[in-house]
Amino acid sequence: MQKNITNLKQLIRAGRGLIPASTVILNGTLVNVMSSEIYKADVAIYEDTIVAIGDVQDYTGPETKTIDASGKYLVPGLIDGHIHSECSKLSITSFAKAVVPCGTTSIVSGLDEYISVSGLEGLKEVFEEINASPLKVFWGAPYRTPYTFPQSTVAFNFNKEVHAKVQQWPECFGVWETVREYVQEEDEETLGAIEQAFKNRLPVFGCAPMARGKDLNGYLCAGVRLDHESYDHEEVVEKMRNGMHMVIRESSVTHFLKENIRAVTEVNPAFARRVSFCTDDVTATDVIEKGHVDNLVRLAIAEGVAPLTAIQMATINSAEAYRIDHLVGSISPGKIADILLVDSPETFHVNAVISNGRLVAENSKLNYKLFAPTRSSVLSSELKCAKTTKSDFEYRVDLENGQAKVLAMNVIGPFVRKRRDVILEVEDFIVRPDIEQDVLMVSVLERFGRNGNKSLAFCSGWKLKKGAMASSAAPDDNNIIVMGADAADMSLAVNHLIENGGGQVVVADGKIIEFLSLPVGGIASDLEPEEIAYRETLLTKAANQLGCDLPEPLMYMFFLPITAIPDYAITDVGPVDCIALETFDPILELVKDK
Amino acid sequence: MQKNITNLKQLIRAGRGLIPASTVILNGTLVNVMSSEIYKADVAIYEDTIVAIGDVQDYTGPETKTIDASGKYLVPGLIDGHIHSECSKLSITSFAKAVVPCGTTSIVSGLDEYISVSGLEGLKEVFEEINASPLKVFWGAPYRTPYTFPQSTVAFNFNKEVHAKVQQWPECFGVWETVREYVQEEDEETLGAIEQAFKNRLPVFGCAPMARGKDLNGYLCAGVRLDHESYDHEEVVEKMRNGMHMVIRESSVTHFLKENIRAVTEVNPAFARRVSFCTDDVTATDVIEKGHVDNLVRLAIAEGVAPLTAIQMATINSAEAYRIDHLVGSISPGKIADILLVDSPETFHVNAVISNGRLVAENSKLNYKLFAPTRSSVLSSELKCAKTTKSDFEYRVDLENGQAKVLAMNVIGPFVRKRRDVILEVEDFIVRPDIEQDVLMVSVLERFGRNGNKSLAFCSGWKLKKGAMASSAAPDDNNIIVMGADAADMSLAVNHLIENGGGQVVVADGKIIEFLSLPVGGIASDLEPEEIAYRETLLTKAANQLGCDLPEPLMYMFFLPITAIPDYAITDVGPVDCIALETFDPILELVKDK
Repeated sequence: MQKNITNLKQLIRAGRGLIPASTVILNGTLVNVMSSEIYKADVAIYEDTIVAIGDVQDYTGPETKTIDASGKYLVPGLIDGHIHSECSKLSITSFAKAVVPCGTTSIVSGLDEYISVSGLEGLKEVFEEINASPLKVFWGAPYRTPYTFPQSTVAFNFNKEVHAKVQQWPECFGVWETVREYVQEEDEETLGAIEQAFKNRLPVFGCAPMARGKDLNGYLCAGVRLDHESYDHEEVVEKMRNGMHMVIRESSVTHFLKENIRAVTEVNPAFARRVSFCTDDVTATDVIEKGHVDNLVRLAIAEGVAPLTAIQMATINSAEAYRIDHLVGSISPGKIADILLVDSPETFHVNAVISNGRLVAENSKLNYKLFAPTRSSVLSSELKCAKTTKSDFEYRVDLENGQAKVLAMNVIGPFVRKRRDVILEVEDFIVRPDIEQDVLMVSVLERFGRNGNKSLAFCSGWKLKKGAMASSAAPDDNNIIVMGADAADMSLAVNHLIENGGGQVVVADGKIIEFLSLPVGGIASDLEPEEIAYRETLLTKAANQLGCDLPEPLMYMFFLPITAIPDYAITDVGPVDCIALETFDPILELVKDK
Repeated sequence: MQKNITNLKQLIRAGRGLIPASTVILNGTLVNVMSSEIYKADVAIYEDTIVAIGDVQDYTGPETKTIDASGKYLVPGLIDGHIHSECSKLSITSFAKAVVPCGTTSIVSGLDEYISVSGLEGLKEVFEEINASPLKVFWGAPYRTPYTFPQSTVAFNFNKEVHAKVQQWPECFGVWETVREYVQEEDEETLGAIEQAFKNRLPVFGCAPMARGKDLNGYLCAGVRLDHESYDHEEVVEKMRNGMHMVIRESSVTHFLKENIRAVTEVNPAFARRVSFCTDDVTATDVIEKGHVDNLVRLAIAEGVAPLTAIQMATINSAEAYRIDHLVGSISPGKIADILLVDSPETFHVNAVISNGRLVAENSKLNYKLFAPTRSSVLSSELKCAKTTKSDFEYRVDLENGQAKVLAMNVIGPFVRKRRDVILEVEDFIVRPDIEQDVLMVSVLERFGRNGNKSLAFCSGWKLKKGAMASSAAPDDNNIIVMGADAADMSLAVNHLIENGGGQVVVADGKIIEFLSLPVGGIASDLEPEEIAYRETLLTKAANQLGCDLPEPLMYMFFLPITAIPDYAITDVGPVDCIALETFDPILELVKDK
């Protein structure tokens, strides 16, 4: 996406019609998101850049390719305004295969999961992978890693000194997902990242679910530009009146669009100007079944947004929110040639996708073979921790037999964990999980070879009747998380991941039931999206068979280390009270047998 | 405008209401340009930053000052999207005194005249002057200096190497006034500046009067974001459909608003979103008589633009076009507290001005004494050129007596010069000017001590019957320009400027009639705006008395060195054919007396 004197000269000549276009798109109807008009117009493209719209007859030479867009509408490539592609467990290459055919040609991402497992070296390798793919990634430098409070362990600590360096990189377009609590706590690293962003005139992307009133004001005073997490439309309205751009989220696990969009359809249509879309976390299955950002366009239209407005939300509004509108978000001369052929603005089915000036997808598939790169050892999935034994997952107390009153983290939807006090049996100095009461053990194991941390606590809501499940993909730290009804199975699950270099596994009765290998940093795979989707189904089915009735058993589990989710979490340093922002002792009381 | 960890902490606390506000504005009606709503709301300010809007009761402490805005509307400080403040001959301090009381709290400027006379050292001194004033300047680094084609002489050559350095400065917000012809000619310095801007993610500001079709496409392919010079609304429409932001210009010498705004009022109201305002070149008289950006708001409303929309054009739209909306352009928490108290959105008279959180102007005047800084020698007005004699302004040819057919540059309005062929008498080897035919001599003298260049040519349209006038303020080079009917008076005029360290002068019959000293770099003065306005009137009157009937005789003259104005110009390297982009010989033919 860089321009230099040499290619600027070529582009200027191409714009003037002195060099023939590489490709012209003829007979289509242009959805002009800049002028809010829809009219017949052809498009001329030189290499990866749009050079003319309207009458492009004079731009055609003998080598110019023609794309016939008769009966089609030309729409700018869609932008996902906030996504952790890693959470789909698809590598960038596989993710591109999934979403580009849906029309998503750009995503805004912190690539933070890659950073937490492989640092800046791994990040640079991912940048190369991105450049070889038809998907553009506008990278925001994570405000800090780890995101946890208190601080947990990751492979790379992103701090303010790192910001001073990476914000100079041309790949960096802002500060990623600056969580409100860190701003409010006046965290030095977070404020240091913001200080650098002001200096470098980069936007600060936010993360402020349920921030209202004075909490919101304090946050805005730090200069945060946008947010992607509002629980209802009143929250959207308050944030927008206070000057924020709103990126409405519709992920695989949270469905906010229908409610949030009421800010536009019911309160004030003028809000539309600064509303855009994101998917945040998506599963491969969801993308295959529903689509990606194209689906959000359709959902918005179904909620009463005018089609042109919905398309603007998915294109130019995102580009303006993130200040990347000089590169993407519209079909106009000088912009990167990311253009969709769509059946109609109303029904919005993407028939073909042009990315970087090349026709790359037709009929919901890439039209060429895209191969994943060879990975260096930096992005290997070696889990640097010692093998475990059953006893690692037994909670020992200073009481031979009796009862323990414990605090179990009870999951309520993917993004809430509430306190649940339960009485468990203590036998042979061990507090026993209790499947009758739906209380399981959960543990996080540091896996970057930094300190060998292990934590252990109690959780509830998963309803496993036996066995265990584990994952080395577990945002935001991506340490190993394991949960189970049985300590031996928990140990087996973890050891299987260690032996196989990362992945997700479900075990029972001492046997591996399902295993998905995640060889890219232990968090992602180069398998085809359909294959991942299928394997995810098998993992879910395996968990279901053990008794779990959650819609996404492993995803609900792997969000457990996120301390930004109320009220409880668990990281490698221990179980965390996310309100008090400190670790806690899950044993509330020990009572001897009488 | 910088934020660091220390002041971020203060701001966050102030936003949370933990530190009382410095000032609250109560009982006003907020014009919320972000949400396009107008409603009752109070505002809390901490130091220079807005920390809350709406109910601010909890933000008041015992030391908090109150501004009562009963019956008033609260509007963000206005932004002039493109201005050479130097052309007003007012120093930054004096310019602030003129425009801030009108509601202009921010300008976007290249400060290019200062750079051409004093380089980066002088620029830094001007930055300090800005910081001590109530006016903010968002600086764009000039795409190059000089702007002339062929290259003329200035004190400092701004080139691509300079861009690599200054684009890192926090004061730099883009590349200033990138002239289309330089892009089209693939000028290395210009493209180098753009290359840097892409790398630094800075916007490229344009200058593309009458660029249409392929010329426009070629220009846009270089990545230019916006333009401030369209001659009619069809040009506006074409540029906006092709993705540009439009900064509509209403200067003292060109009046484009009424015509350009038809793009919004007649063609498509959706264009409004990316339309903003600028004044480019204004005289002190004009600001005093008509106002500044506030006048453009009133003019737009008079042309049928909705008041809220017109206010958005003067505030948030500008801020978004220039990517400074994280700092200014709206009244919302975290933004700089630039707030106007206005009588009503419809009539739009600015009653009071808050800049950087301080009430600085009431009833069209600053409410405190603002003193100009002491200038260092860098910004002195010493004209580094040798005194002249009469013979310097006599056009010598190799013919003792006869006639010369010459090309006189005939001025038609301030921004057009057309060819006029005239026959002049040659006496004693000198081509004589001819007041009967309205043909005068014009000369530009290099004044930075670099090469002693002098040029001489013929001009028409000024109708001086005798005498001469000269100016050391003459964009964009600010060499000395002198014009006259009499060589001795021309020499006197130039020598008077040299002796007095720059300014503007009108002489006749060997006497100084009027003189305005411009001690700041030879281009600006620290006099009060009213005083400058008065002196300008006297200069104009003096020129009128010599026979000139142009509305702004000296301004029309001092635009003569701008080679971007068709069809002719004159710089220190000679008279210039602005179409062929080369110097020309004004003597077309010599005919001996028979």
